[in-house]
Amino acid sequence: MTQAKTVTVKSVTAKSVTAALLIIGDEILSGRTKDRNIGFTADYLTNIGIDLCEVRIVPDIISEIAEALNALRARYTYVFTTGGIGPTHDDMTADAVAVAFGVEISEDPRVISVLLQWMKPEELNEARRRMARIPHGAELVENAVSKVPGFWIGNVIVMAGVPTIMQAMLAAVGPKLETGPRTVSLTIAAGNVAEGAYAADLGAVADLHPDLCIGSYPSMADGRYNNEIVVRGKDAEKVAEAAAAIEAFLARLQTEKV
Amino acid sequence: MTQAKTVTVKSVTAKSVTAALLIIGDEILSGRTKDRNIGFTADYLTNIGIDLCEVRIVPDIISEIAEALNALRARYTYVFTTGGIGPTHDDMTADAVAVAFGVEISEDPRVISVLLQWMKPEELNEARRRMARIPHGAELVENAVSKVPGFWIGNVIVMAGVPTIMQAMLAAVGPKLETGPRTVSLTIAAGNVAEGAYAADLGAVADLHPDLCIGSYPSMADGRYNNEIVVRGKDAEKVAEAAAAIEAFLARLQTEKV
Repeated sequence: MTQAKTVTVKSVTAKSVTAALLIIGDEILSGRTKDRNIGFTADYLTNIGIDLCEVRIVPDIISEIAEALNALRARYTYVFTTGGIGPTHDDMTADAVAVAFGVEISEDPRVISVLLQWMKPEELNEARRRMARIPHGAELVENAVSKVPGFWIGNVIVMAGVPTIMQAMLAAVGPKLETGPRTVSLTIAAGNVAEGAYAADLGAVADLHPDLCIGSYPSMADGRYNNEIVVRGKDAEKVAEAAAAIEAFLARLQTEKV
Repeated sequence: MTQAKTVTVKSVTAKSVTAALLIIGDEILSGRTKDRNIGFTADYLTNIGIDLCEVRIVPDIISEIAEALNALRARYTYVFTTGGIGPTHDDMTADAVAVAFGVEISEDPRVISVLLQWMKPEELNEARRRMARIPHGAELVENAVSKVPGFWIGNVIVMAGVPTIMQAMLAAVGPKLETGPRTVSLTIAAGNVAEGAYAADLGAVADLHPDLCIGSYPSMADGRYNNEIVVRGKDAEKVAEAAAAIEAFLARLQTEKV
């Protein structure tokens, strides 16, 4: 009990760390590629104590990328980007980041040196050299899968779009990120009790716990609702309290039904 | 040939119809729910001749929803929203839309009448009545799955978040949407020819076809690259021309390799 209270105080005073994810790529907007980075990044950040607060998907247009980046980096602790850092003409993320930050961009000898570790000098053609163009002032982000690094400038972390590579880059930067109190989450199965039947009780619990996020998520299985209620918050004790209150009214509603 | 040219002229003169998708829900940002609506909507809109140009995911906060909605509806022909139209306290999309448009919101007798078709008057409690709150001036969007309608106001179409319901609503509004010329897409397998090996040739083809979107998409299978090049555009003839040029240089590169 004492320990739980200590956790409570810590959660309340610790500062939340926030993030946005900016997905860059025509292929997601056209439907050609189905995104797999949003869910992974959401899970990863939630798990280390960073709250993902917004996601945007924009096309391969420098002005659009730069505009979204500037809106997001002003607002959140971190902005993660995925996509657009390869060697082809449609890879324009590094240039867009340079535009957004108003800094120069040029071939970075650190990246050239990484590239030369896995290719012969004669293979390092102009296109591959494009991958070494890094905005001035950026640190490199290691890529354990295909070597070509991402980069980190200000509060913006630029990663590849290929999920396996993006995940390796996230693992490389993860331990260096500032984190806040982790969000604790409890899920209560409401089964096929209709949302409309428990909404008033749930709203009352939510009103009593303004610091918690309480969500009701209907889903359908075999043509019937299979609802879940999720309680999330920084304070494990309060989350458990609210979850217990929800379980209590669901039990009552199920009895009333019988 | 004459017919193809007619198509060309039509594509060039016809106006593009654009869209944004606004996904509303803490559950996507926390990782609890993995989005399935972006890919479906992207495919659906691309297929009927509407270009999806931006996606945003925002939390269940009225001011955030309204702000994103106003930014997007000023910019694109249509904005589709998903999520937040149920009976629980965390469903706040209708209120956010009313705020964004600066209109009143109240219980809509048309929705009450729909609700009474599938529930008894005594089941129509206060929570369920919340689902009938519709911003003034909106048209209803039919929901063939679970009856409770979405709505359409200005250029904004408000849909449910549950994928099966969202899909039914999209099918209901689809035939009423203004559409533009369809984007034609051709995919060329580049196999394990490295992006860095074909980037210069691909860039040259892209420079020759400024009206087309040409993308290079690396993916990994069994630790090797399995690259694809996608050519997209409104003019089928030009798309085919560019695809042929790409196939030609890939064949040359593969021969050079041998």
